Amino acid sequence: MREFKRLTPYREALELLLNDLSEIPDVEEVPLDEALGRVLAEDVVSPIDSPPFGRSAVDGYALRAEDTFPAREYSPVELRVIDEITAGDVSDATVEPGTAVKLMTGAKLPEGANAVLMQEMAEREGDLIRVLRPVAPGQNVAFAGEDVKKGEVILKKGQVLRPQDLALLKSVGFKTVRVKRKPRVGIIITGDELIEEFDEEALKAGKILESNSVMLKGLVERYFGEPIFYGVLPDDEDVIKEVVDRAKTESDLVLVTGGSAFGDRDFAHRFVSLLFHGTTIKPGRPIGYGEGVFVMSGYPAAVFAQFHLYVKHALAKLVGARNYEVRVRATLTDRVSSQLGRYEFVKVWYENGRAKPIKKRGSGLISSLVQSNGYVAIPENSEGYLEGEEVEVILY
Amino acid sequence: MREFKRLTPYREALELLLNDLSEIPDVEEVPLDEALGRVLAEDVVSPIDSPPFGRSAVDGYALRAEDTFPAREYSPVELRVIDEITAGDVSDATVEPGTAVKLMTGAKLPEGANAVLMQEMAEREGDLIRVLRPVAPGQNVAFAGEDVKKGEVILKKGQVLRPQDLALLKSVGFKTVRVKRKPRVGIIITGDELIEEFDEEALKAGKILESNSVMLKGLVERYFGEPIFYGVLPDDEDVIKEVVDRAKTESDLVLVTGGSAFGDRDFAHRFVSLLFHGTTIKPGRPIGYGEGVFVMSGYPAAVFAQFHLYVKHALAKLVGARNYEVRVRATLTDRVSSQLGRYEFVKVWYENGRAKPIKKRGSGLISSLVQSNGYVAIPENSEGYLEGEEVEVILY
Repeated sequence: MREFKRLTPYREALELLLNDLSEIPDVEEVPLDEALGRVLAEDVVSPIDSPPFGRSAVDGYALRAEDTFPAREYSPVELRVIDEITAGDVSDATVEPGTAVKLMTGAKLPEGANAVLMQEMAEREGDLIRVLRPVAPGQNVAFAGEDVKKGEVILKKGQVLRPQDLALLKSVGFKTVRVKRKPRVGIIITGDELIEEFDEEALKAGKILESNSVMLKGLVERYFGEPIFYGVLPDDEDVIKEVVDRAKTESDLVLVTGGSAFGDRDFAHRFVSLLFHGTTIKPGRPIGYGEGVFVMSGYPAAVFAQFHLYVKHALAKLVGARNYEVRVRATLTDRVSSQLGRYEFVKVWYENGRAKPIKKRGSGLISSLVQSNGYVAIPENSEGYLEGEEVEVILY
Repeated sequence: MREFKRLTPYREALELLLNDLSEIPDVEEVPLDEALGRVLAEDVVSPIDSPPFGRSAVDGYALRAEDTFPAREYSPVELRVIDEITAGDVSDATVEPGTAVKLMTGAKLPEGANAVLMQEMAEREGDLIRVLRPVAPGQNVAFAGEDVKKGEVILKKGQVLRPQDLALLKSVGFKTVRVKRKPRVGIIITGDELIEEFDEEALKAGKILESNSVMLKGLVERYFGEPIFYGVLPDDEDVIKEVVDRAKTESDLVLVTGGSAFGDRDFAHRFVSLLFHGTTIKPGRPIGYGEGVFVMSGYPAAVFAQFHLYVKHALAKLVGARNYEVRVRATLTDRVSSQLGRYEFVKVWYENGRAKPIKKRGSGLISSLVQSNGYVAIPENSEGYLEGEEVEVILY
């Protein structure tokens, strides 16, 4: 059995990977309702000022602030109400000295006015109001362009669209948004020992329930992609080659699990020209990548680490996504150790500033993934961190 | 204009809300592929040990560790290879003293063996291997039940299902999972001033582009719900009453935006019996709730705060979701201040342990939502936090 002659350092392999991939040029124009979680294909510039006009932030009286400066409780200022409008209406009146216009929250500020007095602060009598205290210029007014200015970049290319982003787009008049096409990601599972359905006899006879497919589908969906499942293949070099070749033509990326090492039934590296094969990550060392194809482990926990350390970043590169990771600072509740020369993916449970390492570390143990919600990386030149040390956790 | 006689403290209102709601009993059985993000309806118990048998974690030779204890490089131990199997196969052989079975990663450990020697550590010659160093019992073996034991609770009710959770379910034989039905959430937007499509003339005439609908749809989807949009209604009490009544019968929750204060066109509180109306939150003070109906503001930033402070928790209660918020510790880059008596929702940009307050605070400013990715709450009894102070940020 061959072993890896040299393990490529984690970051060196990541750089090879990202340099090999280009952003997908394809753009889709989708309705705002369907754009949640999609990645913005280009900067968005506002076509209008928002609000498009100065408007009242309260129900009250639009007036000239200067008129109210002398107002005192013992000596109120009286203004004449010359018009009354509701929110969607506009007053044609001009607020001249000594006058006011009654309006509702959101209504356009009439000509001449520069402030709004809250309704409950005014004493009304007939068409007069009494103002008891001075009103500052600009008070209770949202001026034109205060939220967004015409021509301003309001969202940047690469933004993963959230509910509030869609609201901003709609508020300046967009009905659709241009997002990146979802990368198609072929998923190929290999291994004679795998079964897809529960079968007690088969399990007794040494078979294993396959679980990487559903995990990878979910991860691909979560990170901007569209999974295409090519099934569970036997350890047959010809079959695997044929399906990998087909997947390469149909997908932007291909993930092949099982057979990434150099065992007798590890085939994938034989017919893909790999840029790297074997990196310092643990678990997941035997990962390989070339020609858009990831050759991955068979063990779920190793596959999971390989996905987060490499595949996730590849997908983000394909769509140009920004801010797709949540990185938090945390205090370790226990020490974690690592072998020098390994880039260790330590699963932790993060909660309110504290990270508790999950001790089960076998690469086959899915329960350790379920008990964790993030990871701490221990780089190659470190033997680990002490209890109480502050570390960075990447949440998943 | 009436004002709120008393603002209910944030947490008191939240308690009234959550006590008024019950978990939805309805359960759906969905295929694992379609369960991402859904909420587990009940504890899940593993029907099997996983792995179901002791298996090899490497390609190598299954043997009795005791046989190798005397092994030294200058005095190797020789064992006879009595069988060779691949991962999905099982050896019927029993490993007797002085013998070994060649196997692949994942293969079932044969009878008699209690450890595996890595292939590259053995010198093979014909049907003999030479062992140069002692092998410890259990080495390179994953024992039965090491990941999950039969009868063990592997996932708890209320878990929001992640890719790794689905993998664990599949690995112990499940093809489907029982999740809570998605709560149906009616969304009703009110306001004469609102338009749904860009129209320059209408904007000049004082109309406003409506944006709460797309934001609320996105938020509802993100927090376990199924949005049902009832459209944008004019400020007509009869129309609003009719649609709210219909939505109440068709939905688990109803969100009505606009008209939550006591202005001349604020209707919703007149025909819903509210448990509270007006709370200490800022922005978003005029929120009301009763009979499954939220009466909300018209301003997007106020609606957004109301959603995160109240509606999100209501949805989580309906489905019994756990761990649906990401709370992180952060150092404030600037001071933030608040009025005593207000529960202030301060938008921040969180990045790697630091929280930068977004200074635009107007309740109508959607750009402030877009520039933020979380909030810091300043409770009623606090006037704020200092620059450099450590605070809790809830990410969104």
